[in-house]
Amino acid sequence: MTAAIAIHDPTLRDGNHAVSHSLSLEDIAAYCRAVDGCGLSVVEVGHGNGLGASSLQLGLARHADTEMLETARANLSRTRLGIHMIPGFARLDDIDTALRIGVEVLRIASHCTEASVTESYIEHARANGAYVHGVLMMCHMASPERLLEEATKQQGYGANAIVLMDSAGHLDPDSTRERIALLSSELSIPLGFHGHNNLGLAIANSLAAVQAGATIVDGCMRGFGAGAGNTQLETLCAVLERYRFATGVDIFALCRAIEQLESIAPVSTPTVVKTANLISGLYGVCSGFEKHVARAASEFGVEPRRIYEALAQCNAVAGQEDLIISVASRLSQPSVA
Amino acid sequence: MTAAIAIHDPTLRDGNHAVSHSLSLEDIAAYCRAVDGCGLSVVEVGHGNGLGASSLQLGLARHADTEMLETARANLSRTRLGIHMIPGFARLDDIDTALRIGVEVLRIASHCTEASVTESYIEHARANGAYVHGVLMMCHMASPERLLEEATKQQGYGANAIVLMDSAGHLDPDSTRERIALLSSELSIPLGFHGHNNLGLAIANSLAAVQAGATIVDGCMRGFGAGAGNTQLETLCAVLERYRFATGVDIFALCRAIEQLESIAPVSTPTVVKTANLISGLYGVCSGFEKHVARAASEFGVEPRRIYEALAQCNAVAGQEDLIISVASRLSQPSVA
Repeated sequence: MTAAIAIHDPTLRDGNHAVSHSLSLEDIAAYCRAVDGCGLSVVEVGHGNGLGASSLQLGLARHADTEMLETARANLSRTRLGIHMIPGFARLDDIDTALRIGVEVLRIASHCTEASVTESYIEHARANGAYVHGVLMMCHMASPERLLEEATKQQGYGANAIVLMDSAGHLDPDSTRERIALLSSELSIPLGFHGHNNLGLAIANSLAAVQAGATIVDGCMRGFGAGAGNTQLETLCAVLERYRFATGVDIFALCRAIEQLESIAPVSTPTVVKTANLISGLYGVCSGFEKHVARAASEFGVEPRRIYEALAQCNAVAGQEDLIISVASRLSQPSVA
Repeated sequence: MTAAIAIHDPTLRDGNHAVSHSLSLEDIAAYCRAVDGCGLSVVEVGHGNGLGASSLQLGLARHADTEMLETARANLSRTRLGIHMIPGFARLDDIDTALRIGVEVLRIASHCTEASVTESYIEHARANGAYVHGVLMMCHMASPERLLEEATKQQGYGANAIVLMDSAGHLDPDSTRERIALLSSELSIPLGFHGHNNLGLAIANSLAAVQAGATIVDGCMRGFGAGAGNTQLETLCAVLERYRFATGVDIFALCRAIEQLESIAPVSTPTVVKTANLISGLYGVCSGFEKHVARAASEFGVEPRRIYEALAQCNAVAGQEDLIISVASRLSQPSVA
């Protein structure tokens, strides 16, 4: 079996969660310069929650979206520039701004059962000539059949590809495979998979996704990403190559790039599966909640495990970071104990 | 499917590689006390290369074997105490010392094609009433059929179980499965698997091993171990439980133990898959070589990648750390460049 697999790298976007959205323009420039010749398909840049998401609720980014994108743009020539956006945080006219800066791949994302919120965004982007990934986040929360329904909607809006995100790191190789296999057999556009490592399965899930038909896979350098981190980029490429999938990535060039980048945040910040990440993955809570939960746990004197459990009980989805405070506050009341 | 899986924890032995064999008696005591009630089958303690291995060549341990074992012994009551030994580093009478201290599980290890060196050790240990795991290290370097031959020898010497070690972190789920499946169908004693995470596949390989019939699996807290680290203990237990294998481990109790241990080396030392670890895994070089290769690379001004490549070319096996210096020295000569 051989298929061409596009490696999509959200190190500078999902990884921004790991440093509370504090990536510097210098880090962004250095990263883009170092990886540009390695054969990656896309480098994605921005606030952890994507375009327009810098806010008190989700966390303020160190730099404006436009500054981050322009910096990346100036330092990429072979790898395409991508962004992530969630309608509501991102506005429709943010698409125009992104395209003007030269963004080449737009990911337009919703919770996995709410594809309809992406309709006008995908249509607007496509009407303006953009290449668009329709993204379904927290994809463990819907059955394969339900995901197919939602992905079919995004395909109908004009998406060029569909990406399933295991935003909570809750899937295993079997549950990944069944989701990708169904969509792969029913959709006419390429499929992608974005994993998190809460259960230590990000590489295995990504391999299962590719074996089931995905041709776009996400990986972050050293796993730098929200919560337990994402699928580790360099090991992902090596394992796909072992399984005879052609990624176009030069693994030894990528390794040399990593060695050059030892001092910048994506490489120097160790990505570890901590107990909070494991528990969050078991409960199926969005990886991007980690730092918010840790802060709320400390502020309200509540065990993180209880916050994750309560968030799971109310089916919290990515973007509902405001719930964390109210859940922690409720749990801190003596009557609830 | 449900089977009882024994979780074997070499954090305080394989992890000793990660800190150049410097684990303190205080760390050992704290670790044993914290995990004793969590349902682990065995905690293994000692120098990274096992009993008797403290030496200039392999690295001097901070404490004598007897001190480490006595400390662990005094702090374990429910989880059994285990050791690893490689004949040659360990002497036959080390077995008597270990048994006198109260070690309950003896692992007697050889390179995967050299089981015969374990014969007198396994026989001596069994004659003295010990429970013995016959261990085949670097098990990617032999075919399933050859491993079966060697494991059959160890079974014949009296081993109570056979453990395959992916010492280089080179296996993938398929190559793990075929090895364990063949041995499981042909041997009459239990089988174990010990993984390393160089390719990010330690959890997936361990799951594949259990699905193929292994009933003993190794995991280290936070992955603390040689090179890229071992299979992460707490995620391993969670994933096995997800797949309905009964480990007897209380995952939340284990998480609380980890939180208590934040300040000790196995938890506070981040285990990261660095480029050297990835390359070492791709070439199939023993994980325990990492720190020696790094030192030699720096001393002789040679890229670590070239040292790993040369070690692979001469089929270096665990215990041949002396080769690293000569390889690095040779590579540093202008005539070889």
